[in-house]
Amino acid sequence: MASDIRDPIQGSKNYKHVTTAPIPRLEYKDPRAEELIQSGQPVIITDSDLVGSAYHWNLDYLCANLGNGLYTVYTSGNGKFKYYDEKKVPNVPSFQPPTSHTDMTFQDFASKLKRKDNSDWIYLQQPLNDTVGPRIELDFKGFNWDFAYRQMKRNRWGPLTSNLLLVGMAGVVTPAHYDEQENLFAQIQGYKRFLLFHPDQFECLYPYPIFHPHDRQSQVDFDDPDLKKFPQFSKLKGYEGIVGPKDVLYIPMYWWHQVESLEDHGETISCTFWFKAAPTEKVVYPLNAGQKVAIMRNIEKMIADTLKDNKNMPHFMRTMVQGRYS
Amino acid sequence: MASDIRDPIQGSKNYKHVTTAPIPRLEYKDPRAEELIQSGQPVIITDSDLVGSAYHWNLDYLCANLGNGLYTVYTSGNGKFKYYDEKKVPNVPSFQPPTSHTDMTFQDFASKLKRKDNSDWIYLQQPLNDTVGPRIELDFKGFNWDFAYRQMKRNRWGPLTSNLLLVGMAGVVTPAHYDEQENLFAQIQGYKRFLLFHPDQFECLYPYPIFHPHDRQSQVDFDDPDLKKFPQFSKLKGYEGIVGPKDVLYIPMYWWHQVESLEDHGETISCTFWFKAAPTEKVVYPLNAGQKVAIMRNIEKMIADTLKDNKNMPHFMRTMVQGRYS
Ligand SMILES: [Zn+2]
Ligand SMILES: [Zn+2]
Repeated sequence: MASDIRDPIQGSKNYKHVTTAPIPRLEYKDPRAEELIQSGQPVIITDSDLVGSAYHWNLDYLCANLGNGLYTVYTSGNGKFKYYDEKKVPNVPSFQPPTSHTDMTFQDFASKLKRKDNSDWIYLQQPLNDTVGPRIELDFKGFNWDFAYRQMKRNRWGPLTSNLLLVGMAGVVTPAHYDEQENLFAQIQGYKRFLLFHPDQFECLYPYPIFHPHDRQSQVDFDDPDLKKFPQFSKLKGYEGIVGPKDVLYIPMYWWHQVESLEDHGETISCTFWFKAAPTEKVVYPLNAGQKVAIMRNIEKMIADTLKDNKNMPHFMRTMVQGRYS
Repeated sequence: MASDIRDPIQGSKNYKHVTTAPIPRLEYKDPRAEELIQSGQPVIITDSDLVGSAYHWNLDYLCANLGNGLYTVYTSGNGKFKYYDEKKVPNVPSFQPPTSHTDMTFQDFASKLKRKDNSDWIYLQQPLNDTVGPRIELDFKGFNWDFAYRQMKRNRWGPLTSNLLLVGMAGVVTPAHYDEQENLFAQIQGYKRFLLFHPDQFECLYPYPIFHPHDRQSQVDFDDPDLKKFPQFSKLKGYEGIVGPKDVLYIPMYWWHQVESLEDHGETISCTFWFKAAPTEKVVYPLNAGQKVAIMRNIEKMIADTLKDNKNMPHFMRTMVQGRYS
């Protein structure tokens, strides 16, 4: 087989302090693929054809067929698209949004992307809805829903919540964060590098306080980590892999991921399949890392709700822990 | 008025790092006494005669009249009587009780106290109950219950829960801790120095984790503070006063107190009046320090109950806070 940009050796990019092993790449019939998903481990499946009916999607086709609906387009001055929750912005008066967003037609987005005359990076992120034109609707209906629902049932995930269409300029970066849903991430065009970290790496990744707009995002800038503030970052261990056209990556819930569209391979087109978590049955001890993250989130929410004063929360948390549990 | 051992200047004892102001000493008719109690501030009331019917209690009288019931007597090798909760001992396998206790008649306790031939300190701490003889019962009934219940009603405290009889050798020390009840502390014989600290000094006093047998006790040894582990101790600010015969000290709930029977003034005889907390009405913001302590206790209990593994609790707490709220 010819060498591919996705081969582990070519794909590896070194962040100082971050140690990674390759994410397994397996065919969907390989029993190990199923075993990894069932045990909550990430895997790249190469031939599920989950979005096989969309392999022909590219900028021109989407321009011609997506209709005149409005799409949310994010703009960043430095290529990083760190998500923030608008509802939590009032909680931190000093907060400066690192990106802005506007709604535009797909055609306007595509011409912006092609022009390349501006110094800003742009990234379209829009849930697929019923404003898409008839041909896209047909493509959408032709997705390999069998595969998707088989995964959902086998792993007792909750219902599918949304399919996010992602169209990003080469070079855009989504900094490390975790989501509270299971995700089958299907790549259509271009290449994306994924860095993945188990939920037990929480203490190396220092997520923002829960009330912060950047909740669920790591505070650490991987390009220039502040090891004084975040000393455990130097112990971070994870997985790394590049997904290209036809690849589907399973991102287990609570797993951290940093996603980078490779330079020099054009824009990236991807589609996510997000599923709600499996119902929590009888809790079994010892707790796993994901359950501990969920407990921490609940505790932090409860304290924030009780104190009703986020700016006093750090002092309260410190007082509870320092010299007592530290 | 002649100088008294209780006068602030004579009474002050210097602990390095601990700054204290005098606890106000006021007559019960002084309106400021009432104002202090109502605002949850400590005060020594000099003439309430709360236990006026017991001013004649001394070792011989108690020996002759307390009956043959058994009394709990604590023994300490170093004069410090740091309380521990026996129910929580299994939570900390390495825990070594700093005191021991045995049940004995008051007569046996009194002769031990008089002998003074042993190197151990002893301290009797026993709730008054109906095994006391008829003369003590009469004295007890003659307490100034009007005063006690007036305080209870005026400050909306809950019911009286117990009267603890305390008989301590000169020199015994009860290290800094807080209680979860309101306390009218009545002195009968001998002198006790009180160091009191507002609940907002929590962060300077580093109580043990909630699951620890020494829950509610400070981890800091005032005689030899470990400022590396407990750096905020050097900022501790509080109140200090000596209570003698007839004095009643109001110790507000959640206020820290360290109590020392003075050397060279014989044994101390005291009686506490403990009342449940006022019912929590509609919570008013900003929260006060006592409410924050209560919230912290609830949070710690919930985490301990959820993790079901106390030895992992410090790591969990650190992970939640370090680099995130610190
Ligand atoms: Zn994500
Ligand atoms: Zn006490």
